[in-house]
Order: sequence, then structure tokens, then C-alpha cells
Amino acid sequence: MSTKDNNCEFPSALHVQEGIEQPASVSPYLQIKKERQRSLLTADEYIHGICQGDRVVLSRAITLIESVHPAHFELAQQVIEGCLPFSGNSLRIGITGVPGVGKSTFIESMGKYITGLGNKLAVLAIDPSSERSKGSILGDKTRMETLAVDPHAFIRPSPSGLTLGGVARKTRETIILCEAAGFNIIFIETVGVGQSETVVKSMVDFFLLLMLAGAGDELQGIKRGIMEMADALIITKADGDNLTKAMAAQALYQSALKLFPIQENDWIVPVDICSSIEHKNMDKVWNIISKYQEATQKNGFFYQQRMEQLVKIFYDFMNTSIKDHFYQQEKTDKQIKKMIPLIKEGKITPYQAGTALLQSYFADG
Amino acid sequence: MSTKDNNCEFPSALHVQEGIEQPASVSPYLQIKKERQRSLLTADEYIHGICQGDRVVLSRAITLIESVHPAHFELAQQVIEGCLPFSGNSLRIGITGVPGVGKSTFIESMGKYITGLGNKLAVLAIDPSSERSKGSILGDKTRMETLAVDPHAFIRPSPSGLTLGGVARKTRETIILCEAAGFNIIFIETVGVGQSETVVKSMVDFFLLLMLAGAGDELQGIKRGIMEMADALIITKADGDNLTKAMAAQALYQSALKLFPIQENDWIVPVDICSSIEHKNMDKVWNIISKYQEATQKNGFFYQQRMEQLVKIFYDFMNTSIKDHFYQQEKTDKQIKKMIPLIKEGKITPYQAGTALLQSYFADG
Repeated sequence: MSTKDNNCEFPSALHVQEGIEQPASVSPYLQIKKERQRSLLTADEYIHGICQGDRVVLSRAITLIESVHPAHFELAQQVIEGCLPFSGNSLRIGITGVPGVGKSTFIESMGKYITGLGNKLAVLAIDPSSERSKGSILGDKTRMETLAVDPHAFIRPSPSGLTLGGVARKTRETIILCEAAGFNIIFIETVGVGQSETVVKSMVDFFLLLMLAGAGDELQGIKRGIMEMADALIITKADGDNLTKAMAAQALYQSALKLFPIQENDWIVPVDICSSIEHKNMDKVWNIISKYQEATQKNGFFYQQRMEQLVKIFYDFMNTSIKDHFYQQEKTDKQIKKMIPLIKEGKITPYQAGTALLQSYFADG
Repeated sequence: MSTKDNNCEFPSALHVQEGIEQPASVSPYLQIKKERQRSLLTADEYIHGICQGDRVVLSRAITLIESVHPAHFELAQQVIEGCLPFSGNSLRIGITGVPGVGKSTFIESMGKYITGLGNKLAVLAIDPSSERSKGSILGDKTRMETLAVDPHAFIRPSPSGLTLGGVARKTRETIILCEAAGFNIIFIETVGVGQSETVVKSMVDFFLLLMLAGAGDELQGIKRGIMEMADALIITKADGDNLTKAMAAQALYQSALKLFPIQENDWIVPVDICSSIEHKNMDKVWNIISKYQEATQKNGFFYQQRMEQLVKIFYDFMNTSIKDHFYQQEKTDKQIKKMIPLIKEGKITPYQAGTALLQSYFADG
């Protein structure tokens, strides 16, 4: 992949990778631009700042991308386009699990371990509930106190007020910017309910499912199908009185997974335990992820999966847009509302109803 | 559902349900129409014949539905529309499993058991391979020798030469005709590989997964996700030397399934064993299915699922048709071929590429 070379071509580029940190409060790049502090930068200024690893510029660029203001769209696209050549050079890890599984503490403990190894970590989130509540997971940064002040970590809450498709796009674009800013590990957190896992799965290299040891009904809260997406199962809270239970759950899941189909990339899904509060087994989990990266980069699946993800997004985006155009027609909406009761009562086949609607749509086209 | 009343309103209607059989060779309805034996009937003649339970008319009507000749389409739709009020009154059962699991012998043994209880059974198939080979499962009726000559059973091979979406539509329409002809149990057979299970799942009330007892890798041939669609797991070939292995597999799957999320309808997926050649446990399997029907009809899920299936087909059909229209544009095809390498190389985002294509498509609309 041509995007693996992460050299920024700006002459004065200060790479985050090179260990030169820019604390948020003394961003030299923005100091020059003091008078425009709250206004927009130019595309080149954003790109330059991001490639220098300037976290304030990165944050502001993400805000620009997330903006639903039509005037910001064109500029945002220019920034993304400019960052694209410097992106791709990270390991993208999806993390999911039911509420209560301890995702935040896990990310904090795992994140500290990873940055301690010299990595730069960006933590993003996809929160389906943010549509309604306008809140977002990760929004409450106090949940990750240590990681939030780690100069090698960058935490960004889920964009809110968008559809899941909208959140997905913004997050994919944010990944590009984070990678251009030198972050070589990206975490994407989501809640183990609803459709968001499929979306996260479609943008990560590795998908981690966190589980609680329980009384055999551990998965009652996890949606059917999520289990099969996982590249590893990690049982959290394996500490204190819970350790024995966690080990029993590990054995159970290990034998259960043996009965299920292996992945197309020949990866055998490992099951392990960890304790985030005792910082136990973070090395083991990281070892699993590293082994996966090594194996799939060796057999080519890693690159293949990324290319397939991109092509899939391309088609999904077009398919969604065509559908949106169709369903946003006032006439379509009216006709659908009339047809559905007739279909449900068995008075007309879905094909006959659909044909009528399509004829009317294309007749106007 | 208004379709549950399966009374045919033709004055001379001879219901198959009432036990009056029409051997294929002496169809009185067609005797009158001798001179037109190989030509088309009128819509009313098809509908009347079907509602009388005339198997020859039913067969010819299915052939009409399966025809890709545009001239036959309108007539076929009239026949379906006419049968629709008499449809819906059956239990639709999907049956899947890898090649070698013994689907044909199972269907034969189970089928005989079911017709022996006084039911009328129609056996249909969805065969994804028929696209390429133009062959079809069930095509070789010698595989079901006993069932093929059972006057209470009707076997129809998978339509060939169509896309999976096309096969799905024809099969759904065939179900309507079979139900109008008085068949109160419908089997839909498919092979446990590829996308066809999702299609079968979307048209049945109960989905049965047949499995082989093996060496812990029983599911290597089954696609990921199919396991989670099943309403029951039945381990076949539980006879002779294989009985112990089958019982061990049963115990394994039973404990494995406990770890997985329960279905939204609160049904706990049972695991059992059977022997088709020894006709063993067919009563148990039938009992499972009957219990499921009773429970889901009681809690309303049965009817809810059918209505949701119909609404889903409606949307799927429209979505597919809109997509087809877009992708069948010569210009679209050309642009996609140009864009995909750029997307894969990371030179353009999938969103940017998609936007360009959509602008050009809608500009012409």
C-alpha cells in the first residue's frame, strides 16, 4: 500500500513519531495564528499542523470534519485529501463489550501499556446512543484520567447528532487525520449492542470482544453475531474473588469456540483473561494482537482486508445514497405507508407493491 | 392474518385438504383442456386448478412463474394475485446442512413421517449452484424415491439460471401457489454454504440445521453465522457405530449453545440426534417443530415474523431494483472500474469517489 510511507513533506515538519511533543497549550503553529484562533485555518494550514503532530490543529480539523455546516464540507474534504498520503500506517483495533464489562478501565490500562512501549495511541469511539442523547462514550474523560493526560495518547469522543452511517464516515475520516498526525495505534471503542459493531468491524484490522465471567449467561447482553466477528475474546475483571470464575469462563469459551467455524484467514480466535485494575495480562493481550498483525501481514490478509474494507465503503456509500434519494421523495413515502398494511394483510405481494413504487419513481426520473 | 382462511371460492372446488387426491395422470381439470395441454391456460384456469389441488396445474403454474419470458410475467402475476387469498396457511420449514449431512434421506424419512400424520407436504429447494451448473438439488428425484411417489407430497426442484434474488422471488411465489393448493407443510431445502441460508431464513417460520457428528471440527464446512440462524440443531446419521459419536456431539453442542445469546423470541435452541435410514427420532424432531409453532403462535412471534419478512422483502426488492438501475448504467460501470484502483491505493477516499459517481448519475436523471 502506497500509504504506508508516513513522511510528511512539509520542510519544517516536526513528527510526533520523532518524540517531539507539542503540549496543547503552547502549540507554536497556532501561536503565529493567534488572531485567527477560533476561526477556520486554510486547508494547507490544517494539513501542515496535522503532519507536524500538532494536537490542537488535529482536534480542530476533526471538529471541522464533524461539522454538519455545508460551508465546512469542501474544506474538510481538502484536508482529508491532503492527509490521505500520510495515512494508513497504523494498527486499527476495535474494542467492544456490554456496558459494565469495563471498557474504559481496560482501554486506560491497555493504553498506558501500549504508549509505554513507545507507541502513539489515538482512542476514538462510535456510540450509537449519541444520536438520541447527544452524549457520547469517551465524552466523560474523567473515566480515563491517566490516559487523558498521557502526551502519547489522544482521546476523542464519538461525534454526536448523526446517523450511524454519518458517525461511521466521520470516524473513518478522523482515522486518516490521526494517522497523518503520527498515531500508529488506533482504538475504536463501541458498545456491544446494536448495529455499531458491524460498522466498527468494517474499519479495523483487529476486533476485540471483552466479556464478563458470569453464570453461563455471559452473552445475554451481546447481540447475536458479534461473537463471530471477534478476533479475540478477553474476559475482564480477572482479579480477587472473580479470578476463578474468569478462568472457568475462559475454559468454557475456548471449548465452545472450537466447535465453531474458523475464520477465513486461518486465525484461531484466542480466549484469555485480564485485570485492568491490577494491570495484569496487558502484555498477553498485546501479544495476541501483535501475533495477529504479524500472521495476517505475512499471509497478506491484513492488506487484503483493508482494501476490501475501502471498496465495501465505496459501494455502501453509493448504495445508501441512492436509497436515500429514493426514500426521501415525498411521493415514495406516501405510497409506502399505503402499501405496508396491504402487504402485511397478504392482499398484495411485496414484489407487486415494489414494482408499482419503482415505476412511479423512475417515470419521473 | 386474513390469509389463514384457506377456502377456495370456486363452486366445484375439490380440496386436497379434504383428502380427495388427483393422481397426476388423470387430472380431470386438464382432460377438458386436452387440446391446450402444452399451451398456456388463462389466469382463472390456473387459479381454479390450483385451488382444486390439481398437481399438474400447480406444476405448470410454477413453470409459468419461473419463466423468464417477458410475455409470461403479467399472467404469472395474475395467477399469484388470485392465489394470494388462499395462501399463508402452512408451516414453512427451512432445512440446511453441508453436503454429505444427508439432507435428502432426512427429508425423505421426515417427509414420510409427516404425510403419515395426514399432512400435505411440498418440498422446494433453493440452490445457489444452479446459477452456474444449471443443475439443481432435488432435481435428481431418485434421491427421494419413496417421497416422490407419495400422493401427499409434492417435490419441486430449484429454479435454475437465475440470480439468488431471482430464485428467492420465484420460490416465495411458489410457496403461495403450493399453499393455495392445500399443502400445509412446506420444506425449503438449501446447501449450508454461501448466501442462500439468509434467503431461506427470510421465507420460513422454522429453520433446521442438520449436522454431522465429527472430530470437533463439525462446522468447518458451515458458513459463519448460519449456526446463529438455526431454530434447532439435529445431528444426523445417529445409527450403528456412529451413535455414540452423535450423542457426544449432541452434548457438546448443547453446552456450547448455552453460552450463546438466546433468540429474541425466547426460544431455546434444542439439539437432538436422528437416524434417517432407521427412521429414528423423526417424531422427536417433529415434536420440536410443533412445540416451536405452538409457542411462537401463542406469543405472537410467528405472525410477527411473517409480517416482518414480507415488509423486508418489499424493501429489499426496491433497494435491489434501485441499485440495479444505477449499476446497469454503462457510465457507472466505467467510472467504478476507474475508481477502484485509486481507492485501493489510498489516493482517494471511497466517499470522494462515490460522490463523483452519484453526482454524474443524478445529473442525468
